[in-house]
Order: sequence, then structure tokens, then C-alpha cells
Amino acid sequence: MDDQDTKQRPVLSKALLRWISKEYSDMNGTFYHILSHPPTPLEFARLVHASRPVIIRGVEFPALKKWTNEYVVERMGGQSISVAVTPNGRADAVTRGIDGKLYFAEPFTDTMTIDELLTKLQSDEKYVYYLQSQNGNLYSDRFFSKEQEDRSEFEALRPDVPPEIRFISDALDRTPDAVNLWIGGSDSVTSIHSDPYENIYTVVRGTKHFTLLPPTEGWCLEEKSYPHAMYSRADIASELQLVPSPPEIPLVRWSSVADPHLPNALPIEAQPIHITLNAGETLYLPVGWWHFVRQSGDITIAVNWWYDAEIQGMNWMWLNMLRAGGNVPPQETNNL
Amino acid sequence: MDDQDTKQRPVLSKALLRWISKEYSDMNGTFYHILSHPPTPLEFARLVHASRPVIIRGVEFPALKKWTNEYVVERMGGQSISVAVTPNGRADAVTRGIDGKLYFAEPFTDTMTIDELLTKLQSDEKYVYYLQSQNGNLYSDRFFSKEQEDRSEFEALRPDVPPEIRFISDALDRTPDAVNLWIGGSDSVTSIHSDPYENIYTVVRGTKHFTLLPPTEGWCLEEKSYPHAMYSRADIASELQLVPSPPEIPLVRWSSVADPHLPNALPIEAQPIHITLNAGETLYLPVGWWHFVRQSGDITIAVNWWYDAEIQGMNWMWLNMLRAGGNVPPQETNNL
Repeated sequence: MDDQDTKQRPVLSKALLRWISKEYSDMNGTFYHILSHPPTPLEFARLVHASRPVIIRGVEFPALKKWTNEYVVERMGGQSISVAVTPNGRADAVTRGIDGKLYFAEPFTDTMTIDELLTKLQSDEKYVYYLQSQNGNLYSDRFFSKEQEDRSEFEALRPDVPPEIRFISDALDRTPDAVNLWIGGSDSVTSIHSDPYENIYTVVRGTKHFTLLPPTEGWCLEEKSYPHAMYSRADIASELQLVPSPPEIPLVRWSSVADPHLPNALPIEAQPIHITLNAGETLYLPVGWWHFVRQSGDITIAVNWWYDAEIQGMNWMWLNMLRAGGNVPPQETNNL
Repeated sequence: MDDQDTKQRPVLSKALLRWISKEYSDMNGTFYHILSHPPTPLEFARLVHASRPVIIRGVEFPALKKWTNEYVVERMGGQSISVAVTPNGRADAVTRGIDGKLYFAEPFTDTMTIDELLTKLQSDEKYVYYLQSQNGNLYSDRFFSKEQEDRSEFEALRPDVPPEIRFISDALDRTPDAVNLWIGGSDSVTSIHSDPYENIYTVVRGTKHFTLLPPTEGWCLEEKSYPHAMYSRADIASELQLVPSPPEIPLVRWSSVADPHLPNALPIEAQPIHITLNAGETLYLPVGWWHFVRQSGDITIAVNWWYDAEIQGMNWMWLNMLRAGGNVPPQETNNL
């Protein structure tokens, strides 16, 4: 968010933000639905209107039964895939640089075969590897618009993952914007953030642990603006180093709460929802909800479908207002 | 809204209210859907999520074809019905009393046969008559809960009006809270207000003219708190007089904009939507939308279904916040 944008948007007082989050949590609590089988499109449309997290059991597709290590290695063969590499498992997260300053750090992207990735995830490695390219690595909007070829590093796995989930596309009356494959281990975490999408997340293997906050509690995460940096290495034999980006790269607005589970990481007003998602379970994570994500075990595989949210009506505006509403110091600060 | 309530709720700055209404109107404009036939439950669920007004053609029920004057008089016979009576056609509206002060004025309620009402609506009468009892006069929640008998003055007309509209009940997964019959002429207006219901409004005969404002523009209506008063008469031969209620009756919060069509009645930020609804047409008026309503011609007959709005999620809280947000002087003021 640039400075001009900040000026145009309102600053909400802490008292108002507190009132909003208390009113919301008084009305909604930390309740979430658990459905024993997929909803009808109409039932899902009602859930989207309520915009609360839902665990859905019984969303079936071939990957859930087929994706052993042997199977995916056999299917993918020597195909090169892009993998995020960090020294600490914190890709896309606020990280202290060697100069002592805090940066929003993007991972180094390495390429390897899926066999190499799976081997690294099961070994004791110097670095942490996480397949999390988030760019529609299975299907992107090019696939759905059919106007351009939609190449995927995971072409060979596409037959096992449907490009869209019928009850969701019918409920929302649209196709996904991106479908992503995630493969990582317990050393990787996804720092707390929110996305401008309706998000459907299915665990294929392993277990994911979500910590969720409603859009009304974004102010509890104390977003700040951090300079951008990226892990890189001088040559293939060198160590990864966090390299600050040139000053013309915009500051990145990100939560200063590194781990919401640490004592006093969140103010007492925050009402996090903790959801453990096992293989075969699907999470509906509504637009604008904040999420911090960890995995259990060596190899957790998940697939998510991002659908554009409804921008007609008031909800989109409220999400904009809440995102704008926190106090976002433009200067780099050190209280991570 | 009492004083304690006011203290607990936030006061939103005029700058923030302006930002909210501009952001909303930039995103949504004054667009509304016109459907040539009733939507499916799923389509309607999506419309409820967008929460914009929709004109729906082709919602059919027997009253639309049957309700001539002769038919309703024949069916209703000598049944006594409750009719609102005012000197000026402004029931439930801010009105100046003989003491020069402004009051929220409720109508006198007279009883008569439907034949008498229809005759008065077609005659030159001293007073204005409007059947607008709004208490579930066709079906109330007692009808749907089936726990108590639900008597209706319009029992004889019930076969012509379904207690619920299938696609709406299915979309919302609930039965109506109240179904109301409205019979009035061009001398009656309904002052601008909003209801905490999803509202479905079908014109059976005549024409209704709606002036709508989204929930985000409530601040344009400059609500104030008015003392309560009610029209009454000393005996059946006396004139109607506006009688202030005892001081223990709470003040009534109401818009000080008597007619949004008058020049400068609304600030330039307001983006009213004007919808004319003809016989056979149905309006979906989403929860929290402000509406000012007039009729054309001698006799306009309409039916509306109120459904409880979804209170799960954020929308209900935002509506509460917007209703609380305007500056509501508790004292009686004279700038109507």
C-alpha cells in the first residue's frame, strides 16, 4: 500500500476497531461448522454469506488415494519444479537481516525434481524446502479463460486434481482464479496473512494446523511496513543470504506478529480459532480471514482453490476498510 | 435507542461515514437487477449475499388475478379490519404538533369493513386511510411456529396469498417472520426508514414508487430522537388530534428528512435509487436498505414478506454499526 493510498483511506480509531471486533465475536464466537459430507451449491452459498470457516469432509478427488511418493515420482519423472528455500522455514515472512534490521523476506527459488524435493523433506538438511509457489502452479486463470496456454510444472499430476470443485463453482457462479499445490514439512510455517480470495483448502497427505482470526481482528496483528528483501546466493555452492531489495521496491505491509501462539503475541481481545485439518479434510477459509499455517510430519501435501470473492455489495468494502484501518507505521520498526 | 445504548456504541466520524458511502457507491453505483422470471433458490442466495435491490417479474399467486374490489368485498363480508387514519397521510412519521414541536406521530387506528375502506379510498375524505398494520396481518410468526393460533383479520383472503415464497424460504433456509397486506392510495406516504428484515414486496394492484438508499447512506438522513405522539379523538364525532405520549414513553429515533425528493433534502453524497413497481412485480429490498414509499392512483394493494436476516457473520454487525454511527441528538429539534 503506497502513501497516497494511505492518505485516501480512513484511519479507524483503536476504540472503534475494538468495538467492531468485540461486537463480531459476541455475535459469532469461535464457532465453526463441520460438515460430514460436501454441501449442495445452495448450502455452500449460505455458508459464503455467513463467511465463517467450515471443515468439509468427503471432498473426493484421485490425488487423495493415489499420491504416494512412488506414484508422484513416477508421474513427474525428471520434470523441474520450483521450490522455495530459506534457512529458517519462514518464506514470505518478517525476518531480521544481518544488518539487524527487519525485512519482509521472500525465499530463494531453487529448481529440482519432485524426487529430490521429497528426499530433502525426509532428510536432515541445512535449508528448509517448501513447494508453495502460489501462482496457480496446478491451474491458473489462463486455464479457465482458455485464451492462453496454461503450462504447469505439474502437468503430469493434473489428472488427479479437478480444476474446480463443482459445488463451489456453482455456489459462487465462477471458476477458480488459481489452483495451487503445496508440499512441505514441519520445518515450514506460513506467516499470518489474509488473502482477497474465497479459499478452499484440502489436505491430501499429512496434517495442517491453521490458526485463524476473523477480518475484524486484523488490528490485533499490528501490521507494519517493512522493506523488501530476498534470499539469494552468489553461486550454487554459496550460502543463502538475505539481500535487501533496491529502495525503489515498495515497502511491504505485513503483520509484526511472528507467531500468534507465543505468550502475549496477541492482545486479549483476539479470539483465534485453531483448526487441525487431516488428510482428506477440506477447509473453507472465507475471504479476508487471517491465517497462520503449520504442518505436522515430514511430508504434508495440500491443494487449494482460490476463487475471486464477490465484490458487489458491502462485504468487499468492509474488508478494505478493515485492512486500511489499522495503524501502519511507514517506517521500519524493530519490535518484531 | 436509549442513552446507555448510545454510550456503548461507537460514534463514527462524518469523514469515515463519507468514506464508507463513497467507497460503496463507487463499487456499486445505483445499479439494480431486473429478473424476467423468479430466480432459483441458489440464484437468490447469491443475490442476498450481494444485498442489492432486485426487481423480480413473474412471482405468481392467486391474489394477482383475483383481487378486484368486488371479489375482496365478497370474500371479507362484514369482517372488521384495522386501518391507520391520519389528517395528512403521514403515519409513523415526524409531524409538527399544535404546540409547534416535532413528534414521531403514530396514526389513529379505526376499524371498518373492507368495503368501507375501499369506498373511502375512492372518495374525497377529510382524513387519509391506509391499511398498513405491519404486524403480520396476513400471517405472523405464530402461523409458522404453529405453537399458537394465528388469527388474521384477513383470514378470508389467505387462500390467495401463499404464507411463504418457495425460492426465498429455500435460499434463506427459514420461514417468514411476518406477511403483511397493504391497501392505500396516493395520499399516503411511508416515511423513509429501514427494517431489520430481508423484505420481499409484491404489488397486487396499482403502482408503488420506492426511493431507496443503501445502508451506507443512513447518515444522509440525519436521524434525530423525537418524542412520541399518537393521533386520537375524544369521541367518534370529534376531530383527530395529535396527542403527545407520556414522558416515560421512549424517544423515537427517526430520519429528519420528511421527503427525500425535495430540493436539498439529501446531501450531494446520497445516491438514491428510484424504482417504480407495477402490479405483478416484486421487489427484493435487502436488509437495512432505507426506503421511502408512495403509491399512484386511488387503490394500491401490495403484500410483503419479511424474513429474518442472517445474523451470523459480519453483515449484521455492520448494519448495527451504521445505524449507531450517525449523530443522533437526543433532544427534540425543529429543523424538519
